[in-house]
Amino acid sequence: MDFKDFSCVDFVEVLASKEPVPGGGGASALVAAVGMALGNMVGSLTIGKKKYADVQDDIIALKEKADRLQTELLDLMQEDAKMFEPLSKAYGLPKETEEEKAYKAQVMEECLRDACAVPLKIMEKCGEAIDIIQEFAQKGTALAISDAGVGAAFCRSAIMGASLNVFINTKSMTDKDYAGSINKKADDMLQKYTALAENIFTDVLGRLK
Amino acid sequence: MDFKDFSCVDFVEVLASKEPVPGGGGASALVAAVGMALGNMVGSLTIGKKKYADVQDDIIALKEKADRLQTELLDLMQEDAKMFEPLSKAYGLPKETEEEKAYKAQVMEECLRDACAVPLKIMEKCGEAIDIIQEFAQKGTALAISDAGVGAAFCRSAIMGASLNVFINTKSMTDKDYAGSINKKADDMLQKYTALAENIFTDVLGRLK
Repeated sequence: MDFKDFSCVDFVEVLASKEPVPGGGGASALVAAVGMALGNMVGSLTIGKKKYADVQDDIIALKEKADRLQTELLDLMQEDAKMFEPLSKAYGLPKETEEEKAYKAQVMEECLRDACAVPLKIMEKCGEAIDIIQEFAQKGTALAISDAGVGAAFCRSAIMGASLNVFINTKSMTDKDYAGSINKKADDMLQKYTALAENIFTDVLGRLK
Repeated sequence: MDFKDFSCVDFVEVLASKEPVPGGGGASALVAAVGMALGNMVGSLTIGKKKYADVQDDIIALKEKADRLQTELLDLMQEDAKMFEPLSKAYGLPKETEEEKAYKAQVMEECLRDACAVPLKIMEKCGEAIDIIQEFAQKGTALAISDAGVGAAFCRSAIMGASLNVFINTKSMTDKDYAGSINKKADDMLQKYTALAENIFTDVLGRLK
């Protein structure tokens, strides 16, 4: 069974256990999906309201993007687990002889690249989600504005969470140039989107207090 | 069926809809439970490791607290919905006559107090979770340190998310003294625990990069 089909209580339980998966990457994908859904809810509550008739087409288009992102993020919960398992096995390879050492190093490097790719993709999707939430906050019904703020906070923590799962893997890579290029990508997204999400939250907080 | 028993995909879907529940409060309880579980995972991966034998008793005690908090937070998902429904109905009460207006105002005030109580409780539980994650980060296995960092980021966003669900309700209260005392409590927790969680995250990030 895919992790997205686990009940919330079962997912939390297996996450807390010593099972190798799910981990922080998959959990970040879930939290981002929950954040995107809160933005999407603002859209759902806006459609059909006379006061917002002039932005209805924009809201419908945004909701389509949000639906797609939710699905992609929920699928990334399983994708993260799938890419982590080979790495988890590679850590256990023997390294007694020189030959074993060389083989392990090569397998590890490949597995680390794969294990990085998923949290990096989760980060990209978090960024898209934050952009969409910003539009929902600007155009959607003021009655649901708190939900856009909560969604922004969740996607901010999800991109931060996914970034740690990039950095923990790049740290172990022997190809430092490749590791550096991945870190740069992650750092750029982290900087841009944590700031944007914080702004959305602060703006919502200001409208509520 | 309680929301905690919904599959992740079904919870995200109903959250994104125009259904009055679940909302940002219940979603914050889920994100905090996921964050607490990530801290708890650090504990699970620490137990039985020779290198950490001297802190094993502390870790076992922390894990018991974490298990309890996860359960409480998952139950708060439903509790939040239960307290929001009467408020949702109160908004729809008629206010044509003076008598109706007075009755609506009184019912609204009571419902607003109840609807505030749950996100305030979620905030308290987020604070406890952040304290526990800090100890897991300090004492638990360094191999799982990223999970403590991700957990701290999630609980930080959950306390922020829950706070918006306090403020949106206190804003509508007519008893401004009561509203002010609740806002003060929420502000104090928000200030203390967003700073603490940010420190845990930054510390973990520093250890990974």
